[in-house]
Amino acid sequence: MQSTLLSDIDGLFITDPINIRYLTGFYGVSPEEREAYVLVTAKTTYVFTSALYRETARQLSQTHQEIIEVSYDHPITAALSEICDKTHIKKLGFEEVNLTVWELKTLKTSLSDVTFIPTHSRVEALRQTKHTHELASIKLAASLTDQCFTYIKQRIRPGVTEGKLAWEIESFFNYRAGGNAFSPIVAFNEHSAMPHYHERGNNPLRRDSLVLLDFGAKVNGYCADMTRVVFLGAPKDEWVNAYSAVLTANEKAIQLLKDGERNGATLDASAREVIAEANLPTYPHSLGHAVGLQIHEAPRLTVKKAERLKPEMVVTIEPGVYIEGAYGIRIEDLMYIKAKDGELLSKSNKKLTIL
Amino acid sequence: MQSTLLSDIDGLFITDPINIRYLTGFYGVSPEEREAYVLVTAKTTYVFTSALYRETARQLSQTHQEIIEVSYDHPITAALSEICDKTHIKKLGFEEVNLTVWELKTLKTSLSDVTFIPTHSRVEALRQTKHTHELASIKLAASLTDQCFTYIKQRIRPGVTEGKLAWEIESFFNYRAGGNAFSPIVAFNEHSAMPHYHERGNNPLRRDSLVLLDFGAKVNGYCADMTRVVFLGAPKDEWVNAYSAVLTANEKAIQLLKDGERNGATLDASAREVIAEANLPTYPHSLGHAVGLQIHEAPRLTVKKAERLKPEMVVTIEPGVYIEGAYGIRIEDLMYIKAKDGELLSKSNKKLTIL
Repeated sequence: MQSTLLSDIDGLFITDPINIRYLTGFYGVSPEEREAYVLVTAKTTYVFTSALYRETARQLSQTHQEIIEVSYDHPITAALSEICDKTHIKKLGFEEVNLTVWELKTLKTSLSDVTFIPTHSRVEALRQTKHTHELASIKLAASLTDQCFTYIKQRIRPGVTEGKLAWEIESFFNYRAGGNAFSPIVAFNEHSAMPHYHERGNNPLRRDSLVLLDFGAKVNGYCADMTRVVFLGAPKDEWVNAYSAVLTANEKAIQLLKDGERNGATLDASAREVIAEANLPTYPHSLGHAVGLQIHEAPRLTVKKAERLKPEMVVTIEPGVYIEGAYGIRIEDLMYIKAKDGELLSKSNKKLTIL
Repeated sequence: MQSTLLSDIDGLFITDPINIRYLTGFYGVSPEEREAYVLVTAKTTYVFTSALYRETARQLSQTHQEIIEVSYDHPITAALSEICDKTHIKKLGFEEVNLTVWELKTLKTSLSDVTFIPTHSRVEALRQTKHTHELASIKLAASLTDQCFTYIKQRIRPGVTEGKLAWEIESFFNYRAGGNAFSPIVAFNEHSAMPHYHERGNNPLRRDSLVLLDFGAKVNGYCADMTRVVFLGAPKDEWVNAYSAVLTANEKAIQLLKDGERNGATLDASAREVIAEANLPTYPHSLGHAVGLQIHEAPRLTVKKAERLKPEMVVTIEPGVYIEGAYGIRIEDLMYIKAKDGELLSKSNKKLTIL
């Protein structure tokens, strides 16, 4: 691993909290607050954190991992400078998509002997293919997500609100998993036309409604992601039509993936073709995205950019149809890509369901 | 407001999602994913967001606010460039503590006629003093936090786990408020020695235990923050001693604040003095921090840096004692600072409580 990360540099300074968790196991309570920094060198991985995390850090101690305490009086700039001196680091890589302009300025002032080399998504590249233990967590998250769908369907009744259902999903995962991969989306009728609807509406559900649910468990930090649309009472003809087109698009993309198609752009195009053939508007997002410690990871499956999918990646397949002010339908599954085929991790029923 | 933000620049480009919410009301589902950008100019505030948020953005339309759609084919660099051209922006401020090195590089390439001026925490400075509507949300969050303490005390019984209690707190706020201000801390006995303990332990609570709870509701995006320690069965003498010292320190700092002391360093020092007089170790964090749309905002109340507190700020007062491997006690309240005195927003009982 070190050899990939350090090809042209003596050390790599990591600030992205997800990359820190991936490399060291460390995670804190407020990822946006720089609770830890990591320096990867050829011999040792240094974890810099404050006294607040003294015991936490001690518990994660691994071989070739050293914990260094930082504080107001011994800030990261000083601590990093000492290690760079000690280990003769001259060329220090940093994560240009994470480090802020102010942080780089401060580091350059304190580490005047060091040359700072911008690096782009090196750890993210490692994260694209999943190890066995990562896949195990994702599979468990996907299975809990399936269980939650069974559970929540029983609670979709006249009078229930979006807020109540969202809370039931959140509670289900908080209690049974390590929490929610993201704040669940529960959208009734015209609200489902907003792909990222995130209100917690308190209008009671009426009969003859459409309910879109986009949700996922998190297990050991790893995410699942699934979307289903169900109907309470008789669905309108246009809903049935759109549902059928979206399901065909979803299944076509999944079959192509299983058959060995590895170009994300081709997969997206093939799903869009199904939607277009049904005379429905194309969706304003990509066909899917990779999933892991983050809910949205690279690569995306999009007609905008041909990216090659590789074995051991986990991706979503989620075509949709959105009619502004009227309705939205999206069917999303999680897939594990293998060398020759693929494994569907979302097992929930996709047949049109009337409750 | 514009005059403060734009004193030496023609426009301010905002990327921090909390600042975007503060200025425009816009918030998305994944704040770390750049779901929106804002450009503040003397006449107009521009909100850049994708088609995913088309309807959301339309709903927040305010006077002097214009929504601009960005996409893969019309990225933020192009959209920003067009507006800068149209409105003759030559000096464009950016948020140096938020914009990444890569983003600045990309912007400079696309907007070659514009001079980029680093700015530091300008919106954050506005956010320090709270408007009436902000205070109303914080007060409601504090009140719900008090209610949750009453609720959760009834659930602290032999056999309950940290995970179960944390889930009960999270569910309480998810159902009654807009969610949790942060992932609640529930720490039994020696776990409480870690100020930021964030495990979800499943060891059953035994009699004669100490339970630390650090939690808060979120209402309309605004946070509350409170810590209480209670005892199940007879507390050890050293726990009682430490509890008494921490409570005295907490009450002393609150009284000084009410009496008009406005130097955060003096307040912190006075609380540490009480702890030291009881022959207990000083705490490895500051006495407190401001609270608002974020759980930790500037200023901090710390001996490390003399910062002046101002009317309309909301801050925590949270001294503690931590004995590694043994126990931790922290008592934290939320205070609203007024011109001449202060208002305690956390109303929960602080007397030593044996359940």
